[in-house]
Amino acid sequence: MVPQWLIEKKRDGGVLSAAEIEEFIRLYADGTIPDYQMSAMAMAIFFRGMDEAETAALTDAMMRSGALLDWDDCPMPTADKHSTGGIGDKISLMLAPLVATQGVAVPMISGRGLGITGGTLDKLDSIPGYNSRLEIPDFKRIVSEVGCSIIGQTANLAPADGKLYALRDVTGTVPSIPLITASIMSKKLAEGAASLVFDVKFGRAAFMRDRANAEKLAASLVATGLRMGRRCDAILTPMDDPHGRTAGNALEVAEAVETLKGEGPADTRALTLDLAVRMVALAKGADGEDAKKSIRDALVKALDNGAALEKFAAMVEAQGGDRRFIDNPMLLPQAGATLDIKAPAAGTVAGVDAEKIGRVVLELGGGRRAAADTIDPAAGVSNLVQRGETLSKGDRLMTLHAATPALAESLAEEARMAVIM
Amino acid sequence: MVPQWLIEKKRDGGVLSAAEIEEFIRLYADGTIPDYQMSAMAMAIFFRGMDEAETAALTDAMMRSGALLDWDDCPMPTADKHSTGGIGDKISLMLAPLVATQGVAVPMISGRGLGITGGTLDKLDSIPGYNSRLEIPDFKRIVSEVGCSIIGQTANLAPADGKLYALRDVTGTVPSIPLITASIMSKKLAEGAASLVFDVKFGRAAFMRDRANAEKLAASLVATGLRMGRRCDAILTPMDDPHGRTAGNALEVAEAVETLKGEGPADTRALTLDLAVRMVALAKGADGEDAKKSIRDALVKALDNGAALEKFAAMVEAQGGDRRFIDNPMLLPQAGATLDIKAPAAGTVAGVDAEKIGRVVLELGGGRRAAADTIDPAAGVSNLVQRGETLSKGDRLMTLHAATPALAESLAEEARMAVIM
Repeated sequence: MVPQWLIEKKRDGGVLSAAEIEEFIRLYADGTIPDYQMSAMAMAIFFRGMDEAETAALTDAMMRSGALLDWDDCPMPTADKHSTGGIGDKISLMLAPLVATQGVAVPMISGRGLGITGGTLDKLDSIPGYNSRLEIPDFKRIVSEVGCSIIGQTANLAPADGKLYALRDVTGTVPSIPLITASIMSKKLAEGAASLVFDVKFGRAAFMRDRANAEKLAASLVATGLRMGRRCDAILTPMDDPHGRTAGNALEVAEAVETLKGEGPADTRALTLDLAVRMVALAKGADGEDAKKSIRDALVKALDNGAALEKFAAMVEAQGGDRRFIDNPMLLPQAGATLDIKAPAAGTVAGVDAEKIGRVVLELGGGRRAAADTIDPAAGVSNLVQRGETLSKGDRLMTLHAATPALAESLAEEARMAVIM
Repeated sequence: MVPQWLIEKKRDGGVLSAAEIEEFIRLYADGTIPDYQMSAMAMAIFFRGMDEAETAALTDAMMRSGALLDWDDCPMPTADKHSTGGIGDKISLMLAPLVATQGVAVPMISGRGLGITGGTLDKLDSIPGYNSRLEIPDFKRIVSEVGCSIIGQTANLAPADGKLYALRDVTGTVPSIPLITASIMSKKLAEGAASLVFDVKFGRAAFMRDRANAEKLAASLVATGLRMGRRCDAILTPMDDPHGRTAGNALEVAEAVETLKGEGPADTRALTLDLAVRMVALAKGADGEDAKKSIRDALVKALDNGAALEKFAAMVEAQGGDRRFIDNPMLLPQAGATLDIKAPAAGTVAGVDAEKIGRVVLELGGGRRAAADTIDPAAGVSNLVQRGETLSKGDRLMTLHAATPALAESLAEEARMAVIM
């Protein structure tokens, strides 16, 4: 195989065979094909696209670059969710234990945050003692025993994706639907869950700004999953405003606990339930409105009667965490300083700019500019007002959490600007 | 400057500023920008193109990556020609001395052959003693004293082009008009000639298969040259059939000598004269049909009275060659075996497939598959029939020259197939 011939074929609008894609990715993963050929191929794919079969072949080749988990020994059906990332998106924290209450196992492998987008893993790591770096046998045991486990990406799963993603990031080849699809799906498929639900965000703080592109990505994810023999469903979620009233790692964990207590913001609870219904329905092969209605009823009950919270606590404990923070939020990392931001005038909240909130959290120390940065788990925003609320002058817009009063002060104006009145 | 931002700008159809292009190329040339970013940029340029200003900025940046020759001390105006390459294209060998007879200096820096395309340098290197690796001061001295000199590409001129061309070759980014333009022009402009004539080939054995693309390339070369303050002209030449009756290094030198004696094939003589008229007219600022007619008359005279041949001999001598081969072609490298290929039936020659002839010469040892290959200077094809000639069964189609009879025999069938009757 001459790599440039395949690059030229794609460049000229040709369709690559599964064998060609498999060989190209295998040789890229083992270092035979250098980065400069892969980046040219990625740019050709950006312009020419890939059809469903090509995208599935690319996903398959990247998935097979590493280990494949299987859940044959797990006594429950398995399901997982992937979100394309948003501000204040703590849904996974509630979703995994909630779904697990219904006899559906959730083996979830999550990522860290980068830029303004948070990562589930960083949130969990703010829980005292929580070990997100389990070995695979422990991960499998906890999933089977507790019903859910959330760990970090292991180098073992789809390593070609890690290599290719780093290259795409610096060569202008990130925003390509087949490449995004293969990146997401290679990891999710290697993780082995039989049912997959996708939460594709669109809006001012989302990777996909417009709904049409988000729809295309959702369709591509589902089509690829189906071709690879999984059950799949997808929803589109607006990501103009943050989810819930918190953004920042420990603050989001506290809000997740509230939601698992049957409280918490309505939007956070609603999205969690929507995704949970789809996961349980897919995993149990439940069709029709009646079946989904009764799944929803059972899930609402599990949220309101403490069953989901107990499942969450059991997961935290199984992964070495100290479950006492659930009743005592002060055991989570606490910021050195807090600062209430006040409304400069009376009015109704027309929206909260999630991108601006994301930047504020990043500046407060709650996010990473580069992958190697360390974060302040206590930093972030809480008590955030939400769209449609009516405020008097001087009412609180949000509370900033930072290591020092000076740092919080320095972000006050930017934070105020994020609330659109 | 963040390289991927510029890649993304071009990817999304933006126009890069001269400063952006200059910095990108400078950092690529010095190794700061890695190959994988350059190849992604090249692929984005392939798809999005570059406007005239961008192409000129790219050319300028690549030109300035190395030394720039100047001819301020040369007592004559300077002119050069660039051909995009063909089979049997020995035009430069006659053109440089012919133009020099008219008081126009020709400082010509030529390349080696690769694949089926020959290189002027390989042809000259078949002349006993000819030194094509002159130092720049010697090159300048010979151009000023003799009126012409032909040497090989020095590592000093436009080194960014050498680096980028090697990358494009393996990343599917060769056939892009702005990239081709910058590659050709950065070297030609660094060489410093004030007037440039381009011979852009099109047809079955040309880099540009169709005339429309060749026209675009010619327009791009001329526009870039004009922007950079040079006088420019271009012609389009069909490259379906080989030029002349020979292909192969020493064989083409012998044919060039014939042409310089006022003999040789009509097509070779006509193309040489056409290009020479344009070079002399440009260099002397001669406008109008009358001026060109008198230039042509003077050039025909110089071909027919031996003045051009004498200039060629003087150049060979100045570069250390043995001029006696001019009267005794047997002093050129001679093949170990020759084989006449015969017409299998009577008929009229409808054409000679230049690509097939190029392959035969390559297989005979007269070309290079890879840049590091050595060539057999004596190998090739002579006595080639030409389009329109009427043949009887058994008439000679061509003579093959090879190191061994077996090698010549092994190409006999392929050679026969190249003549379309």
